[in-house]
Amino acid sequence: MTDQRIPPSLQHLIIEHDKVVKHIPKFGVVAFGGMAGVALAKEVPAAISRSGRDFNLTVLTGGTTTSVFEEGLSSIRVARRYPAVSGSLSRDMANRETISVADYWLSEYSRWIRFGVIPHVKKIDVAVVESTGVDENGIIPSLSVDAVPAMVDAADKVVLEVNLSKPVMYGLHDIYLPKDSEPVPIRNVLDRVGEPVVRCPSNKLAAIIVTDKPESGAGGYGAVSPVELKIAGHITEVLSAAVGEKSLTRFYTLQPGAGPLASALLDRIDFSGLRVWSEAVSVDWVHHVGGKVSAISSSCIYVLRGQEKLLEMVYSELSSLKDSVVLRPYEITNRAEMISRMSLISIQQAIEVDIYGNANITHIGGNIHNGVGGSGDFTRNAYLTVLALPSTTSNGKLSRIVPICSHVDIPEHDVDFLVTENGWADLRGLSPRERARVIIDNCVHDRFRDMLAEYFEKACDVGGHEPVSWKHAVQFREMMELAS
Amino acid sequence: MTDQRIPPSLQHLIIEHDKVVKHIPKFGVVAFGGMAGVALAKEVPAAISRSGRDFNLTVLTGGTTTSVFEEGLSSIRVARRYPAVSGSLSRDMANRETISVADYWLSEYSRWIRFGVIPHVKKIDVAVVESTGVDENGIIPSLSVDAVPAMVDAADKVVLEVNLSKPVMYGLHDIYLPKDSEPVPIRNVLDRVGEPVVRCPSNKLAAIIVTDKPESGAGGYGAVSPVELKIAGHITEVLSAAVGEKSLTRFYTLQPGAGPLASALLDRIDFSGLRVWSEAVSVDWVHHVGGKVSAISSSCIYVLRGQEKLLEMVYSELSSLKDSVVLRPYEITNRAEMISRMSLISIQQAIEVDIYGNANITHIGGNIHNGVGGSGDFTRNAYLTVLALPSTTSNGKLSRIVPICSHVDIPEHDVDFLVTENGWADLRGLSPRERARVIIDNCVHDRFRDMLAEYFEKACDVGGHEPVSWKHAVQFREMMELAS
Repeated sequence: MTDQRIPPSLQHLIIEHDKVVKHIPKFGVVAFGGMAGVALAKEVPAAISRSGRDFNLTVLTGGTTTSVFEEGLSSIRVARRYPAVSGSLSRDMANRETISVADYWLSEYSRWIRFGVIPHVKKIDVAVVESTGVDENGIIPSLSVDAVPAMVDAADKVVLEVNLSKPVMYGLHDIYLPKDSEPVPIRNVLDRVGEPVVRCPSNKLAAIIVTDKPESGAGGYGAVSPVELKIAGHITEVLSAAVGEKSLTRFYTLQPGAGPLASALLDRIDFSGLRVWSEAVSVDWVHHVGGKVSAISSSCIYVLRGQEKLLEMVYSELSSLKDSVVLRPYEITNRAEMISRMSLISIQQAIEVDIYGNANITHIGGNIHNGVGGSGDFTRNAYLTVLALPSTTSNGKLSRIVPICSHVDIPEHDVDFLVTENGWADLRGLSPRERARVIIDNCVHDRFRDMLAEYFEKACDVGGHEPVSWKHAVQFREMMELAS
Repeated sequence: MTDQRIPPSLQHLIIEHDKVVKHIPKFGVVAFGGMAGVALAKEVPAAISRSGRDFNLTVLTGGTTTSVFEEGLSSIRVARRYPAVSGSLSRDMANRETISVADYWLSEYSRWIRFGVIPHVKKIDVAVVESTGVDENGIIPSLSVDAVPAMVDAADKVVLEVNLSKPVMYGLHDIYLPKDSEPVPIRNVLDRVGEPVVRCPSNKLAAIIVTDKPESGAGGYGAVSPVELKIAGHITEVLSAAVGEKSLTRFYTLQPGAGPLASALLDRIDFSGLRVWSEAVSVDWVHHVGGKVSAISSSCIYVLRGQEKLLEMVYSELSSLKDSVVLRPYEITNRAEMISRMSLISIQQAIEVDIYGNANITHIGGNIHNGVGGSGDFTRNAYLTVLALPSTTSNGKLSRIVPICSHVDIPEHDVDFLVTENGWADLRGLSPRERARVIIDNCVHDRFRDMLAEYFEKACDVGGHEPVSWKHAVQFREMMELAS
């Protein structure tokens, strides 16, 4: 079976799983491709863990990982992680500062890897990459391209995990990295301008591991809830109001958000021919190609728990899907140039948002919950940004719309519409006070509307263009937490 | 004199200043070109004011204006202003909400004008544009292009102010607006891909006013101070450390900041051949073309008080300057696509910054001080962003580096270096706590170092990846204000 995936000239690089450890430096930088829980190395983290050796590593990943991956890493010392955290283990370590984590927009992250901009990551010692095959020209990627081309480029050595649980995905990917001073020559969602493989000089290729472990599904997401279906319904209203259905499919592209909300949106959309430009799409969106969806450009296809059968169907339809789906590196999917050229409407989720539209997408108090991902690449450069979130959390006991966010990642200037399960607000062209009124009226949960209106009134007593009263904001939080 | 500026076929449109009022709707949208205090209409605002008529207008400007301009507008009712405020009159009105102000990044602002995205500005009734001449093809701009092409495009009527105090600036400008789904074909700072004039169908041209009023200089800026010279010195150290002098002039472009800091930086740079890509450059930078500066692309050339003689010299050298200076619309200078292609190093100023690198560039408490301008276009898409500010304000009584900003426009993820007169901090790749330590050590003023270190310690007691303690942050502000 490996004969079809690995040419004879490279078969000598195949090693047993545990032997990979000799390629991992005790002190150095190790990068793992993969994002949104897919296309991660399935064997190397566990092998490192089993080795019992002392390591002190800087670890890069393409994006969020899986709990299996994190457990593999948890037994060794990791001093630094980029980008951000993934899952409760690394989250807790970052919050206790037993690990140093710096969080970057994914477009910058990938470019910085390639050019060695981060002082602690001048180069990568080993890049560990899942692939569905390899030939003399390079690596055939798996379900995600993410930062893999940058990692391979910056790496001294590359270790491949050839995964037999997937078909050879040759032809699904378009590997092109921006050139100095040159426009990216992509004009349409499906344009292919690069190569089907990630170039990798054969002298970099240090070892090949063969595995048949399937994807285990992205963690951290629940099933689609009635709240998400309501939010999704309101998003379709926003799309109609902002650009209209006909224009939407003709002139614009959509980034559909992530997790159950993206699935709910797919359910609520009742027209066909959407073009998607995103950094990640779930397998159910891919499954609707030819119907609700006409074209997808993404960096990865991820799978939620329970979607394993859909993934199998995607595998079996791969040869025809290549005409409607392209997987690209972050440096294309998240590139400002491309996002603005694609006239993109971005659906962005958040942990909390203030009454003026400033959003916190990463922290709960001082604790990091997740990284920014590519959110800022999209929200800043999209044609329109729709911020969507449930109006409450903790079983309705806490309002996600608050007087002041404990952290701001997406400033008000980037948020055009706010959507909750209660309704939506068109914020375009409104002053901060006007925004506060329409957000409180349309989006806040009934239970908190009076409280927030009262806060806003007190803040207005203080005065200003965007009135704030820290004293009353603290009181609001205390009241909310007391009541919960 | 007007014969050289206005062709015979358009001479019949010339009217007396006060007659312009009949072209201004009593209730509607009026746009004025010009930014950073230059290329504004010199006669129309005063004529509107003198008319004594009732107006209720939505007013758009290209950017910041002058006190003369604002005084002209102050006697009529303006319900809405875009983008942001300019000067103390409109600032006070925005802070009392007697005017509605929404603040947008300039790239989005211009695009939104053109496509009628802002619900209150579906179209423009009259665009009032300063020009240095007009011909059958269109308008020859003045010292600024800013949003003029978008305003003219979206306007029912155009009123020109042909300004005789300046030479005919034909050939200085490159008017090109991005086309749907197409890359912008500019590869180098000085590439010209458009036309020398702003196209304006002759049936839109409603009236021409002739004036000889010179520029009065941008307000709100003081002279270069020793603090700014120190900051500028540290910026040159950052440039050397981050990319090196040779690479800087060869591979990168610079956005040099604004006002006295930009002038100070020019003073402190001791090498030649810098390429500048910016939305605004001061006339002293233009004056150094051929020496420290080799090429400039900007949306405007502005002039600080005291630089009037430099401006005269620029006027007299215009024919040769055209080879090294190009003025472009915001939709090019501030376009993400161009900023990322230009490998730009952006010098960004701020009102305050927190110990983690989140910056407030617009508000003092809830009061707006100025708009965001194009800051976020540059900081998000630049290769590197250097945030530079004096460590204190109010004669040293208040620290500009604070526990928590009262408003965040530029999130930490966009700030790569922090510079004050005390020193600089390389924030790349550092966790929030690591950033706090190096900022407190290197950038904070001696007077506040212990106070901030103490705050940081207390916040760390609370814990978290990016520790915050609102209680102690409020105490810090109170202590600081008490001491001052």
